[in-house]
Amino acid sequence: MEQKLATLKARLAEIADLHATGALLGWDQETYMPDGGAAERAEQLATIYKIAHEKFTADEIGELLEAVQPLAEQLDDDADDAALLRVARRDYDKARKLPTDLVVALSRATSHGVESWKKARAANDFAAFQPHLEKIVDLTIQKAEVLGYEEHIYNALLDDYEPDMKISQINPIFRQVKDATVPLVAAINAQPPIDASFLHRRFDPKTQWDFGVAVVKDFGYDFTRGRQDKSAHPFTTSFGVGDVRITTRILENYLPSALFSTMHEAGHGMYEQGIAPSLARTPLRDGASLGIHESQSRMWENVVGRSMGFWQHYYPTLQKSFSAQLGDVSLETFYRAINKVTPSLIRVEADEVTYNLHIFVRFELEQALVTGELKVADLPEAWNEKYRAYLGVTPDSDTNGVMQDIHWSSGLIGYFPTYSLGNILSMQFFNKMVAENPAIPAEIARGEFGTVLGWLRENIHRHGRKYTPAELVERVTGGGIDAQPYIKYITDKYTEIYGS
Amino acid sequence: MEQKLATLKARLAEIADLHATGALLGWDQETYMPDGGAAERAEQLATIYKIAHEKFTADEIGELLEAVQPLAEQLDDDADDAALLRVARRDYDKARKLPTDLVVALSRATSHGVESWKKARAANDFAAFQPHLEKIVDLTIQKAEVLGYEEHIYNALLDDYEPDMKISQINPIFRQVKDATVPLVAAINAQPPIDASFLHRRFDPKTQWDFGVAVVKDFGYDFTRGRQDKSAHPFTTSFGVGDVRITTRILENYLPSALFSTMHEAGHGMYEQGIAPSLARTPLRDGASLGIHESQSRMWENVVGRSMGFWQHYYPTLQKSFSAQLGDVSLETFYRAINKVTPSLIRVEADEVTYNLHIFVRFELEQALVTGELKVADLPEAWNEKYRAYLGVTPDSDTNGVMQDIHWSSGLIGYFPTYSLGNILSMQFFNKMVAENPAIPAEIARGEFGTVLGWLRENIHRHGRKYTPAELVERVTGGGIDAQPYIKYITDKYTEIYGS
Repeated sequence: MEQKLATLKARLAEIADLHATGALLGWDQETYMPDGGAAERAEQLATIYKIAHEKFTADEIGELLEAVQPLAEQLDDDADDAALLRVARRDYDKARKLPTDLVVALSRATSHGVESWKKARAANDFAAFQPHLEKIVDLTIQKAEVLGYEEHIYNALLDDYEPDMKISQINPIFRQVKDATVPLVAAINAQPPIDASFLHRRFDPKTQWDFGVAVVKDFGYDFTRGRQDKSAHPFTTSFGVGDVRITTRILENYLPSALFSTMHEAGHGMYEQGIAPSLARTPLRDGASLGIHESQSRMWENVVGRSMGFWQHYYPTLQKSFSAQLGDVSLETFYRAINKVTPSLIRVEADEVTYNLHIFVRFELEQALVTGELKVADLPEAWNEKYRAYLGVTPDSDTNGVMQDIHWSSGLIGYFPTYSLGNILSMQFFNKMVAENPAIPAEIARGEFGTVLGWLRENIHRHGRKYTPAELVERVTGGGIDAQPYIKYITDKYTEIYGS
Repeated sequence: MEQKLATLKARLAEIADLHATGALLGWDQETYMPDGGAAERAEQLATIYKIAHEKFTADEIGELLEAVQPLAEQLDDDADDAALLRVARRDYDKARKLPTDLVVALSRATSHGVESWKKARAANDFAAFQPHLEKIVDLTIQKAEVLGYEEHIYNALLDDYEPDMKISQINPIFRQVKDATVPLVAAINAQPPIDASFLHRRFDPKTQWDFGVAVVKDFGYDFTRGRQDKSAHPFTTSFGVGDVRITTRILENYLPSALFSTMHEAGHGMYEQGIAPSLARTPLRDGASLGIHESQSRMWENVVGRSMGFWQHYYPTLQKSFSAQLGDVSLETFYRAINKVTPSLIRVEADEVTYNLHIFVRFELEQALVTGELKVADLPEAWNEKYRAYLGVTPDSDTNGVMQDIHWSSGLIGYFPTYSLGNILSMQFFNKMVAENPAIPAEIARGEFGTVLGWLRENIHRHGRKYTPAELVERVTGGGIDAQPYIKYITDKYTEIYGS
């Protein structure tokens, strides 16, 4: 049986290599690939994911999983091998349901989809993107149908990003956040607006880059096992525990864009870099879920990166780097500006309070797309409608509206709610961490992050996919997902900032 | 039978995708990969090439090749499909001889080998590299033995890079070059040395980069289907006809390094970019051989790039870009300096006359390594010995000696003679081209390269691997490989420069 386990692990390692290779093809496509490479790249991605799928769904894997089952039952639940077999079994049962043709068709459609999205977004031409998105939605529905689901077709998709999570669990949680957000935004809107216009001065891109790099180095993002590049939409990707890369996007005339995206992606990156090396080349070498992943990125970006303590330490340095732009701006003014609450068009640049409203728009539209209630052709109008209803703003273009995010073009449907789940979880984790280490806020105000990162590594990162998100939340907090800490956090923080 | 052909092509396309993906893993390793990624990257490369090898050597491919054989016999020899089946059959028969374990072992050994070489080269520590190279040589000998050979074990390796070529054909050709080179170098050494010291002034790297890019754009290297990056050792790699990338290395205090390496790699790159799009994702989407490849790179670098005509056009621009460094240097002085003949240590920076002597050193040492006459441990001394004998110089370090090239660390043994074959072929092709288009020298002197590139595309590039090198040389020149045009070229050019 030990021999069978070794064989199974060798097979799974090869499949992990294929996924890492697919990730590199994707990273390169977003960062350095010349335009001429797009058509062949789509084929390469399709081939790699097809082979990975065929190899993983081979009968042999099923037989090996069957053969080692007695071993799995002898092992302690917390043992790496026990988790490996649990997760591999779960993935295998799901993957066996997906025909290779569908996997290939989705890979090809999304590879072309991303290229089309890039061009259409640049040209504000939704009509050019529409047939690609229609194809992707159609294939996604097919995928959900073959995977099967309870209650709602969307649950089949959600499960890819947030294992075991259901719409029926999400809805009451999001409802609480929405119910708290609406009066908070109203109260804020009743106050005099914060002047953040100085953030739109011209900030030298290289200086922005260097500052962001210095901050995330301080956080603990390891550049010997990663790097940062530029891409149209910032993302994190991983080719192993030794190579976890982030990207950013620099806007010359809007300082927060690169700054907070670098912190955000480094939060993802540190999670992947913190996975135990013993899990390398296994299906466990990944985050527990996207919600858990976002809890990390949003914690570093917002709970740490937009806190007064953080800027007490870093603002003098930033101010020195941009003395012409920030010389006349006090710490207090800067802090209020980067936390300015204002209903806006672009999710990735939204403030913490309205951010979740952007998610709710997407979450609801995705559901309508996959149930067939909404046609892709009608999506731009539906998008604009919801922005008017939830945020009181109307996109000036599809580029700044329905085409602002890469997700749907790359087939990530069912992904968006994990951002809000991440926001919610970030405060549950942060509160627990500070309860155990009351010195943390003072450390952050000294630019010291060792305790934070150490706690996250110990309690969350090192486990990779060993536990389901619900198991992990239970292990860390002793309970389930709970919106109240997050609601209290934004209410307290923004009531103080706006003095209402 | 048409159905079988379609199936065969689909299988071969997947294998082409795997090779392209392997090339991307390799490109990334040399350009952007953080150090931490090395161990997992080695596994990824091994997995991809293992799968490619398994898929290509599957019984099914043999059966499909067998089944479509009647079709192949009906086709015109020049038809793409006829060539595809010829080449696939040849590759298949060779690949079937290689056990997958050996392919994997070589991939892993060379992946680790490159990492070790990089570190050992930086630290001038051959002892650290030695066990890796021993492993690579050992596996290479195993490979040659299973492939089989006539006359000499080295022929088995040579065949990978120069199909059908034998040592017994190379020796008399190289002998002619050597016999012509030795008295030419002696005559040159009897003349007053050229002062090229100004080439060692400080040249801003970005300006060097921009000038090189502008030149190869003029050549016709297509940046919408390629890009240039930096690496320790310049190389060209291709992920398809739409994505052919080059790299360069910039030395701040030696102008020719980046300049001529960019031209050289662009020569390779334009070859790959010129392959007919109809050959995409087939085994024909590659150069006919490395000798043919080098004939392109060396032609652009030397026959074009080191000609007086070329610099009549470009020197004013270069001089303007580096007015402080070159303001006091005339065109004639510059031309003589970049063509200065001087026995030296580094192959990639050698002049045209002594270049082949660098190759002969490597060619002879490789033979001795694979016959077992020379041990890896004794390689540095043997290297230095040959440099003293052939070039009259002694390496000051292994970094500038036996470890200067990446080739052996990445398993490229049998590759070096193709550089000299390329030099020889470059003049056969160039003479033919100018005989058909006498205006070419005048065009080059106006910075116009359309006729040159058009002729190369039509006569060489578009065919990819459709013809063997011998067939291609016969098609283009009406004869076989012939050292005399190259000997006449270097004799005439350097006799004029040195006025002897």
